[in-house]
Amino acid sequence: MNVCWIDGRPADSLPVSDRGLHYGDGLFETLPVRDGRIPLLDAHLERLREGCGRLGFIATADEVLRGELRHAADGQARAVLKLMVTRGSGGRGYRPPDNPAPTRLLLRYPWPDHPASWQDHGVSLRVCTTRLGIHPELAGLKHLNRLEQVLARAEWGDSGEIQEGLMLDGEGAVVEGTMTNVFAVTPEGVLVTPDMNRAGVYGVMRRHILEQADKAGTPTRVRRLPFAELLGMRELFVCNSIIGVWPVVRLGEHRYEIGPVTRRAQGWAMQA
Amino acid sequence: MNVCWIDGRPADSLPVSDRGLHYGDGLFETLPVRDGRIPLLDAHLERLREGCGRLGFIATADEVLRGELRHAADGQARAVLKLMVTRGSGGRGYRPPDNPAPTRLLLRYPWPDHPASWQDHGVSLRVCTTRLGIHPELAGLKHLNRLEQVLARAEWGDSGEIQEGLMLDGEGAVVEGTMTNVFAVTPEGVLVTPDMNRAGVYGVMRRHILEQADKAGTPTRVRRLPFAELLGMRELFVCNSIIGVWPVVRLGEHRYEIGPVTRRAQGWAMQA
Repeated sequence: MNVCWIDGRPADSLPVSDRGLHYGDGLFETLPVRDGRIPLLDAHLERLREGCGRLGFIATADEVLRGELRHAADGQARAVLKLMVTRGSGGRGYRPPDNPAPTRLLLRYPWPDHPASWQDHGVSLRVCTTRLGIHPELAGLKHLNRLEQVLARAEWGDSGEIQEGLMLDGEGAVVEGTMTNVFAVTPEGVLVTPDMNRAGVYGVMRRHILEQADKAGTPTRVRRLPFAELLGMRELFVCNSIIGVWPVVRLGEHRYEIGPVTRRAQGWAMQA
Repeated sequence: MNVCWIDGRPADSLPVSDRGLHYGDGLFETLPVRDGRIPLLDAHLERLREGCGRLGFIATADEVLRGELRHAADGQARAVLKLMVTRGSGGRGYRPPDNPAPTRLLLRYPWPDHPASWQDHGVSLRVCTTRLGIHPELAGLKHLNRLEQVLARAEWGDSGEIQEGLMLDGEGAVVEGTMTNVFAVTPEGVLVTPDMNRAGVYGVMRRHILEQADKAGTPTRVRRLPFAELLGMRELFVCNSIIGVWPVVRLGEHRYEIGPVTRRAQGWAMQA
């Protein structure tokens, strides 16, 4: 991390009373910067605003967030911005304050140096043993309760054999990767991605790909996806706002070819 | 809050890179102080150490924590201590650092002023619509991912009609209160409390009550507890380290009498 702002001012520490720390009572967005520009910024801000609504507090005005994000992106060839919005400080106890004063933290990180070969030749996934809890109330939200992802990501090291972990819910349905959403292509050429009604995060890149597929006339289905079905799929890929699209060539011991729908999705991600 | 120490030194803010904030990657203990003394301190430290083990990092040595807790309790007639231990600072991404340097935050709060009548004449519970996700990997831990409790506690206000909320898992089994564990007494006089294999927190007061019941020859059962069974129970109470035991006289529209097992449990809590 090289820079951080809290509520618009340079800062490197947060009051210990913040509910983001005590309860994970907040949300975040991870945004790429390319040549000073933030792709899909509107979709990120929309998701954040909807998330605040579901958690029951009022998000900072879009204009304020947009101004601070643009300032942080300005002059950066490549960077990652992480915006966290918490319900702010509070006393002891879970009960949210009646009139919370949300805290916004904006952090700027260097661009991650993933090898280009992961885009070109694909990545290997493991199936995580850590499962995602079923939580209709929290499903879809990019909230700050991320211990499931921490435990899942701790299942493998950085030797380079595995690039991402696939996470299932407690009933064995595919939900997402530890840091990505998942798409599969059926033998009939339908682009399938798990619904997020019970677990998972509504990824901004996931949404973009679904929209672009619709525009391009590629049939899509958002639905429950039992793990066993993956083995009959023709293509598999993972995506997020930072990495774009990584084709999956290996899932455990199962192999996939990189197909035309995945390559098309990579194009959509690049054009965002 | 009146005082806070981070890693043993007075402090009021935390570095923004802390994984406690980013992911809720840590644990906490809430400890009462009575006349400078911390009841059940050993059990709190044991739970914390076990929790760190399950999350995969090494807890600060008990002697250090014990010394800091005693220092914070010293001279306090009545207070609440909250000890948080996080995996410390990290870069971007879920993967835990190979050699984490955990952060410990110790906060001292005033004693909460719950009316004595809640102890004497009992409390009313609502059944929360927010459900607890089923999570064998996280079950039992007092971790920092507490959005479920925040949403559940936001379901009712402070008008005084409701004192606590009962939380069920996604399958309708009773797990715990938003800030308490739950005990019921069967018509046969067996003290029953839900197991914590799939959701919930292993409360220190819960453990103390189970141990004291065993010593006193009161039969106990720790098991799955479907919600419907509660309506056939003879007594119901909730407990934690701060409040001790509150008899439950109302659960939704269902009424309970305060019975002898509950009164005995109140005695065990007082003697802790």
